[in-house]
Amino acid sequence: MRAAVFEGPGNIRVQHVPDPEVELPTDAVVRVVSAALCGSDLWSYRGYGQRMPGARIGHEFVGVVEDVGADVRTIRPGDLVVSPFTWSDGTCEYCLSGLQTSCVDGGIYGEPGHDGAQGEGVRVPHADGTLVVVPPALRDADPSLLLPLCDVLPTGHHAARSAGVRYGRRVVVVGDGAVGLCAVVASRRLGADSVTVIGHHEERLDLARRLGATDVVLGRGDEAVEQVITLTGGAHAVLECVGAQAAWDTSLAVARDGATIGYVGVPHLVEGLHVDALFSRNIGIAGGIAPARAYIPELLTDIALGSLDASAVLDAAVDLEGVPDGYVAMDTRKAVKVRVDVSSP
Amino acid sequence: MRAAVFEGPGNIRVQHVPDPEVELPTDAVVRVVSAALCGSDLWSYRGYGQRMPGARIGHEFVGVVEDVGADVRTIRPGDLVVSPFTWSDGTCEYCLSGLQTSCVDGGIYGEPGHDGAQGEGVRVPHADGTLVVVPPALRDADPSLLLPLCDVLPTGHHAARSAGVRYGRRVVVVGDGAVGLCAVVASRRLGADSVTVIGHHEERLDLARRLGATDVVLGRGDEAVEQVITLTGGAHAVLECVGAQAAWDTSLAVARDGATIGYVGVPHLVEGLHVDALFSRNIGIAGGIAPARAYIPELLTDIALGSLDASAVLDAAVDLEGVPDGYVAMDTRKAVKVRVDVSSP
Repeated sequence: MRAAVFEGPGNIRVQHVPDPEVELPTDAVVRVVSAALCGSDLWSYRGYGQRMPGARIGHEFVGVVEDVGADVRTIRPGDLVVSPFTWSDGTCEYCLSGLQTSCVDGGIYGEPGHDGAQGEGVRVPHADGTLVVVPPALRDADPSLLLPLCDVLPTGHHAARSAGVRYGRRVVVVGDGAVGLCAVVASRRLGADSVTVIGHHEERLDLARRLGATDVVLGRGDEAVEQVITLTGGAHAVLECVGAQAAWDTSLAVARDGATIGYVGVPHLVEGLHVDALFSRNIGIAGGIAPARAYIPELLTDIALGSLDASAVLDAAVDLEGVPDGYVAMDTRKAVKVRVDVSSP
Repeated sequence: MRAAVFEGPGNIRVQHVPDPEVELPTDAVVRVVSAALCGSDLWSYRGYGQRMPGARIGHEFVGVVEDVGADVRTIRPGDLVVSPFTWSDGTCEYCLSGLQTSCVDGGIYGEPGHDGAQGEGVRVPHADGTLVVVPPALRDADPSLLLPLCDVLPTGHHAARSAGVRYGRRVVVVGDGAVGLCAVVASRRLGADSVTVIGHHEERLDLARRLGATDVVLGRGDEAVEQVITLTGGAHAVLECVGAQAAWDTSLAVARDGATIGYVGVPHLVEGLHVDALFSRNIGIAGGIAPARAYIPELLTDIALGSLDASAVLDAAVDLEGVPDGYVAMDTRKAVKVRVDVSSP
């Protein structure tokens, strides 16, 4: 089959790779219908992180099950499935408590020895614990409605849940990327009183408004903080969706005393977090890598009911051979998030 | 009247000071029955912090109301009252949301221009928002039953609440001082499945057992961490009751993925907290200076009902003239916490 392969910074190539096969009795093989490019794929593309040349890439996909191992019980060939970006056994204490990202036998697509999602097919370990079957009502849905479930929507939801977003809360989202935009959607869904987004891109902030943001602030640093404080009086919940030092500094500055910072941006902090600055203000931090698998069923239900739609974060599409162009589009910020159309459902 | 005065590191003197008077219509004047010495007073005694020579000291007291200002509604002369270590107006948005330590017109006893608790009397600003009347059933109770309410018991409770202690949780308490011991009591009260205490003092760990700890670990560093992991399999909730770098390192090391570290030790961190070490493990931190006033009513109720008793943390007593000796006893770790008997109720 054909799949995207990371050949080094700035160098993604679509080439022939071995077809996926059931290797363990708990595996499924999924034919990819649609995949997506993620901000964290872009980190590899830009030369950060530990991905080695020759490695597969991508961890977001929706597809049709082609084959399952002998021990798979809940997934059947022909099912349309959505996968979280990590696999998990579904039976360990972490999985049972909803923290599938800490599964004792878990992993992430594209890691050494495993398929990436940007290709024609994927071997899925622990199919029962990992995949979620798409209900019939969504069988013919726009793939952009389902793809956010793989990562960015549960990640935005995790930020909101971790920060305690609920009825009456004033929420500030730091970051206008796909995760920040999904954090807006998630916060409105959880009943936030107001959702203010701080970002650097006017067109993404317009999109944030369309997705439910009540206010947007274009800018950075003290001036942006001041605007946010004027608008909100300080946030009850801050959703840190970037990970950079400046985003953390902004998050602390816009937090009201007693607030929680829900952080889901992969941390790239120059310095450590100064706990003494949090102490007298009772500011907490919670979050981390999102246990997407824990959240997909409830989010998928709302998508099926028509009350949840984050498809707008996918604002560009390529076919599989166009994946390298997709990376260029995201790297140059011409696209928020790129969909890859691979096959028909 | 007579009161303890900080004259410099290692130098606490009991001397004559002006009698407290109602200065604002929202004030009360309280005759102190019993006060206590706190670990944070000890920081001043040891020369850390910003207390200036001549300043009053102490912030934990139980007493009888002698006079109230014209605008005080709920407190009457003759009432036996317990005070949290901070005063608060009871009406601002922070007070209404239970974060009285962030009150817009709050303060702490012993701060410049205000009485400390280690004296014969105290002017209490915002009496209605600050003081809690002791119910008749406890009017003649041992003062040691009430004094923990001023600071250490709500602080231990804040650690436990912030860390999400509840039925079934495996809790690790880092620190065997008065706050750590109260965190044990609070964790059992909230339904913890197990409470393991890490400390450096055998007799305090014995006390921890008597207060409800299921396991204790004497030691520090990797060896202590290994013992805790063997005992617990990793903590769902870690209560950081020290504030030092080593205690934070231990807290992170004993935390199970997905855990929350409830921190109430005043942070004295050498380096900042490394958020990247928390991210993949979904470890959160929550806590800070305890809004004691928010918790006193429910804790006092349980004390009145006989189901809550942290009096054992007060393991020594002096009279007012003996306050300097009390500091020596705590400084040399001969006492966990010293009660000061000032007058009869």
